Amino acid sequence: MGKASRQLNLAFIGFGHVGRAFARLLIGRRAWLGRELGVECRVTGIATLDHGMAIDHAGLPLDKILRSRKTGSNLQRCHNGPACTTTTDFVRQCGADVLFEMSVLNLTGEPAATYIREALGAGLHVVTINKGPVATQFRELTRLARLRAVRFLYEGTVMDGAPVFNLVRQTLPASRILSVRGILNSTTNYILTQMEQGASFESALAYAQEQGIAEADPTLDLDGWDAAAKVSILIQAMMGGSTKPSEIRREGISEETGKLVRAAVRRDRRVRLVARAYRQGGQLIGKVEPEELEMFDPLASIRGLSNILILNTDTMRELAIVENNPGVEQTAFALFSDLVTLLRRPQA
Amino acid sequence: MGKASRQLNLAFIGFGHVGRAFARLLIGRRAWLGRELGVECRVTGIATLDHGMAIDHAGLPLDKILRSRKTGSNLQRCHNGPACTTTTDFVRQCGADVLFEMSVLNLTGEPAATYIREALGAGLHVVTINKGPVATQFRELTRLARLRAVRFLYEGTVMDGAPVFNLVRQTLPASRILSVRGILNSTTNYILTQMEQGASFESALAYAQEQGIAEADPTLDLDGWDAAAKVSILIQAMMGGSTKPSEIRREGISEETGKLVRAAVRRDRRVRLVARAYRQGGQLIGKVEPEELEMFDPLASIRGLSNILILNTDTMRELAIVENNPGVEQTAFALFSDLVTLLRRPQA
Repeated sequence: MGKASRQLNLAFIGFGHVGRAFARLLIGRRAWLGRELGVECRVTGIATLDHGMAIDHAGLPLDKILRSRKTGSNLQRCHNGPACTTTTDFVRQCGADVLFEMSVLNLTGEPAATYIREALGAGLHVVTINKGPVATQFRELTRLARLRAVRFLYEGTVMDGAPVFNLVRQTLPASRILSVRGILNSTTNYILTQMEQGASFESALAYAQEQGIAEADPTLDLDGWDAAAKVSILIQAMMGGSTKPSEIRREGISEETGKLVRAAVRRDRRVRLVARAYRQGGQLIGKVEPEELEMFDPLASIRGLSNILILNTDTMRELAIVENNPGVEQTAFALFSDLVTLLRRPQA
Repeated sequence: MGKASRQLNLAFIGFGHVGRAFARLLIGRRAWLGRELGVECRVTGIATLDHGMAIDHAGLPLDKILRSRKTGSNLQRCHNGPACTTTTDFVRQCGADVLFEMSVLNLTGEPAATYIREALGAGLHVVTINKGPVATQFRELTRLARLRAVRFLYEGTVMDGAPVFNLVRQTLPASRILSVRGILNSTTNYILTQMEQGASFESALAYAQEQGIAEADPTLDLDGWDAAAKVSILIQAMMGGSTKPSEIRREGISEETGKLVRAAVRRDRRVRLVARAYRQGGQLIGKVEPEELEMFDPLASIRGLSNILILNTDTMRELAIVENNPGVEQTAFALFSDLVTLLRRPQA
């Protein structure tokens, strides 16, 4: 507050909807960042999968890049630095203090994990919204961050910008997470809600794809992989376990589920794709499967794209956090809140 | 983390169920406080309304006081310090760094506000769970705390230990609270839920009193004053307004409400005592009144003693926090989490 201003250099891997929303948020909160944290952020590098990359150690013209529709030619025009042929090169050359990793989800965690390892190893803080590397290489990456005395943050991997990891770290001191239960995948919840209102699985899915809610290949969502990756992250980051996504008991939703949904509605109940993690005989068990719930179950009232996470703790018993119909701005806010976390506490 | 240990002296005003639960939590988390924050807490003063007070600058024997059933004679036996005739005297003489104010709610805010003012003025941090002084003298007390470079914290005034103020301060950076909506009073929600299951108002209230949920004089809860005080605090602490409890539009529940509840159930709807705050033409409006809600409204699924607060923000849109059936341990956790907040950030 009123601290002398210092420069902070940021780099992005990925510059799709989320990256652009985050860039807008950074511009909109420029004054707040200066006033509250004494920093002035500039973006010194942007690397994309399809549109090349740009580096400028004096700061890229973010406004101009955002205004342009043609990200590709624009990035190339703005480039004013060392030539990079690979993203790993980019990480080494971008001159950033913080890397924001927003590349596309791949359950193997690669290539994102390689970029993150490279950045942490070079002493950059890393913020990611990418579940793959966090779920598959949690220990290795957090250990590397600790070793290099930088932060590795991933608020956006579960429930977008709703505080989950920041909530537990910063507002639930000395608390042990005994178990968690929730709805963590928006696409399947959207389809389930549509089906309970009478839509068929196919039409609900087609509509979700049309609206940009579901991917062209929706397998990772429908088969429960996305939710399983999130459960794995919750277990590793908050419960001290090491359960990997492939070890989560997993059942997704399909055409078949429609029958369950309609039968449940007739009994005044609701089907939800429930994600759980709990301790059993010294082990941490993770599960993702459709469950029929009573109407007064807090999960039953979660409709559409909304998410809920119920934490069962030894201090606060059950505490739930609900995110209502998130969009791309809410994911961007996860990146922003992690940026603030690492500025306030640069060491874990 | 591994910091050299330093002594921190605490004093309590009030030592009822919450105070005792907080004392147990301090004992249980002694190792955590040493390890994570490098502090060793001792209680140098306890003042009660009915059982006298005790001061010992070398630390009171908390275990022994907790074990005893007769708080009064026990406190007097432990006293080993200056004689105090009033609680104001106690605040001056207790030798504490942090005062925990847990005296009984009085809507005027007094005498608690006087104790708090005295403590802040003397350079003590103050943590309270008492809505009265926070709602009626918010500006004066926060200004005094800032002036003396100490913290004035009040997490327990709304939703017990569920993070509300800590949530907004620590996990929603650069966010503006546009409006809030919720269920903030457990007693009335308990009675409403009982009535929707067929109980009469009278029997539900009598049962709640028997269970220690409702006070012998339940007026502050039933007439909506308790919820109004909470709305007033939310407006002042999170929304930049200055609406006092008496300025909140307020309607409580009564025998009459039973008819509304039963009629709503027949229409497959639910009645809840809804607390709201919103902006209207530059003004901040607060309201507490029974509302009939559709079944899929998140407030409709909140039953019994549970509470919910939905924050509508400019960054995260709607974010809700739900506390499930809190008890005295959850209120004690509010005091503990404020203690951790002030240790992590001793200045606002």
